[in-house]
Amino acid sequence: MKGFFKVQTPAQLLQKLNRFKPLSTEEVPLEESLHRVLAEDVTSSINLPEFPRSTVDGFALKAKDTYGVSEKNPAIFQIIGEIPMGKISEITLRDGEAIKIATGGMVPNGADAVEMVEYTEWVNSHTIHVFKTLSPLENVIQAGEDIKTGEVVLRKGRLIRPQEIGLLAGIGRTDVRVFLRPKVGIISSGDEIVPVEQEPLPGEVRDINRHAIASMVKETGGTPIFLGIGKDRFHDLKEMIELGLRESDMVVITGGSSVGTLDLVSEVLQSFPGTEILGHGLSIRPGKPTLLAEIKGKPFLGLPGHPVSAMVIFHLFGKSILKILSGLSDEKGSGMKLKAKAGRNIPSVAGREDYVRVKLEERNGVVWAYPVFGKSGAISHLVNADGLIKISTDDEGLEEGEEAEVILI
Amino acid sequence: MKGFFKVQTPAQLLQKLNRFKPLSTEEVPLEESLHRVLAEDVTSSINLPEFPRSTVDGFALKAKDTYGVSEKNPAIFQIIGEIPMGKISEITLRDGEAIKIATGGMVPNGADAVEMVEYTEWVNSHTIHVFKTLSPLENVIQAGEDIKTGEVVLRKGRLIRPQEIGLLAGIGRTDVRVFLRPKVGIISSGDEIVPVEQEPLPGEVRDINRHAIASMVKETGGTPIFLGIGKDRFHDLKEMIELGLRESDMVVITGGSSVGTLDLVSEVLQSFPGTEILGHGLSIRPGKPTLLAEIKGKPFLGLPGHPVSAMVIFHLFGKSILKILSGLSDEKGSGMKLKAKAGRNIPSVAGREDYVRVKLEERNGVVWAYPVFGKSGAISHLVNADGLIKISTDDEGLEEGEEAEVILI
Repeated sequence: MKGFFKVQTPAQLLQKLNRFKPLSTEEVPLEESLHRVLAEDVTSSINLPEFPRSTVDGFALKAKDTYGVSEKNPAIFQIIGEIPMGKISEITLRDGEAIKIATGGMVPNGADAVEMVEYTEWVNSHTIHVFKTLSPLENVIQAGEDIKTGEVVLRKGRLIRPQEIGLLAGIGRTDVRVFLRPKVGIISSGDEIVPVEQEPLPGEVRDINRHAIASMVKETGGTPIFLGIGKDRFHDLKEMIELGLRESDMVVITGGSSVGTLDLVSEVLQSFPGTEILGHGLSIRPGKPTLLAEIKGKPFLGLPGHPVSAMVIFHLFGKSILKILSGLSDEKGSGMKLKAKAGRNIPSVAGREDYVRVKLEERNGVVWAYPVFGKSGAISHLVNADGLIKISTDDEGLEEGEEAEVILI
Repeated sequence: MKGFFKVQTPAQLLQKLNRFKPLSTEEVPLEESLHRVLAEDVTSSINLPEFPRSTVDGFALKAKDTYGVSEKNPAIFQIIGEIPMGKISEITLRDGEAIKIATGGMVPNGADAVEMVEYTEWVNSHTIHVFKTLSPLENVIQAGEDIKTGEVVLRKGRLIRPQEIGLLAGIGRTDVRVFLRPKVGIISSGDEIVPVEQEPLPGEVRDINRHAIASMVKETGGTPIFLGIGKDRFHDLKEMIELGLRESDMVVITGGSSVGTLDLVSEVLQSFPGTEILGHGLSIRPGKPTLLAEIKGKPFLGLPGHPVSAMVIFHLFGKSILKILSGLSDEKGSGMKLKAKAGRNIPSVAGREDYVRVKLEERNGVVWAYPVFGKSGAISHLVNADGLIKISTDDEGLEEGEEAEVILI
């Protein structure tokens, strides 16, 4: 009975995900585009800024008139007025003249720099002293310096963060084309599973996975659809999976891929024409019984029934699939991992990838990772963890003080 | 005109935030509690698991009967049946007996360990060989091992992630008490600001900040309320701030704290009884003109008009205030910062904290940070940044290869 299914490495299975493609797209208002994924290359139809602007509060002037000045040897400028905000300035500045300007104000013709108010002093109501030398263009942002007309400012596949929203607002985009949010059908399987609101009888347990996986789907930009708790019977499961394939872009089942129900789920999957089992069984811990298939062009992910295993595997595979479906190819900032030192020895078994739950503590600029021990059925210890440390197939663990990469969860 | 307001360090201003207190609370269904903040200590009324469960697929047996066995010298067990899932098992196991059990099944009386199916082999339909020694409790999670009745499993102030939702589901919580989401009133001020959908006339610019700050509020769990674009006139601003204080828990104004409108905004604020200006002017770059006040017990934050400065300051102060209002005191996983090496020299001026926008690149396990240059008015370079490097007041910058802390944005 050994080797009853062909075990793959996580990397082998991840490679097979590239068969899945992004969903179609829709247009949404800018206000509703946060954390969506751009489905178009965005080109600017304007210069930004559209005119030369001051980046400080102070006085616009010619930089050359400040050359050689100092605290002890200030230059004198004649103040010829004030730049009104929101208006075009018709003034042309001459040598030795300066004009009051606020941050964002339009730098007038003739001026090429702005002296900060802190480095000036009024001599009388028409004259100031200037104490600091400026170079040309200092404290001035030129027309088109930020963005030029015709420039591609954002590429398809980019996750829209507040920065991207600011940029889109700046170039006047009120709507933006994004990929559809993937709908994920979730089935909890197992004869012992009861809904959270129900008092479990002896031998029964509450449905943790439905809620945990639905939350992870939401965090990754998808919309969870709960399909129900499936008893371990062919027609029950088949009906739910059929519903899931009809109503959603991806189907996830938890608990259905342990040895107990493996044959059954596999049988159900293969009763759909064109099903391709991409993997069943991973050299990973936790999460060995993971099942991945393509049915009717849609991804089907079978997760272990243990909540911790289910969540670790969804983190590694479910999120990756969701990112593909949602067209995400450029996720700034995230995906960066943290380096930490093992706070104690962390043993592992060579021959499989081990994902150890760790708690992080920062001391004197060094991040230490302490393993949170507990069996993979224990939800409480995942709650105490800050991240996962991956111990590669070839490693036999980490020694205290050894550096490792932590995936924040 | 030098030193026209008293400059504080960012740390001094952050200390003053502790005067603000969390909002009141509400009960929400578990399904809607993701990314909310717990407003109660959660105690479990049950053991989890409620009965001893197998953590693998295999055979429940007495560990002592496996002592000394090996691949070459297996032990023989008599199979007395199978544990039904979701049912209590009345069987009591005797020496030399084993019973088939699936992951999550109830370990019967008499058994104290479970042999994984991989280390067994059927001899005939009633008998198996077992190849691996077990210790007592191996592959068994005991009743209450995860969570014990009466145990406080989650504390007030905890951000609810998928893990926390899983745990709450596990102990049967269908509703949970959370802090209210802070409502944040946002005012864009400046005579030159026009709404995004409007074609700017010469000298005018589109309202980037409204959208960027609203998105950051959403990301931090708040609800943005846009109050409008305020012209630089006393009654305009006063009316909007009054509306903001009525409708929201915190008011943010952008552009209103440069020298140009400083006196005006300050005058407006002081026309409300009991207003306390907590700070105006920070030794920070970008963001020097930052303004913080308490009006009618509510925080008021004035941000620079430059989008990049506004976003950096909101990141440092606005988010901190929002976290206080939303009761957040225990945010797992996040808030961890990344160590990176400067990819080139990054100069800075001593005497102020400098927040340099950087792009990150990972090579051979080392994260390198490259400064993204650009004036603080340029939104496009914030879009290209992955994070901010803080250069302390005493530093004059970083040398290439020097290590620094990056705050991911």
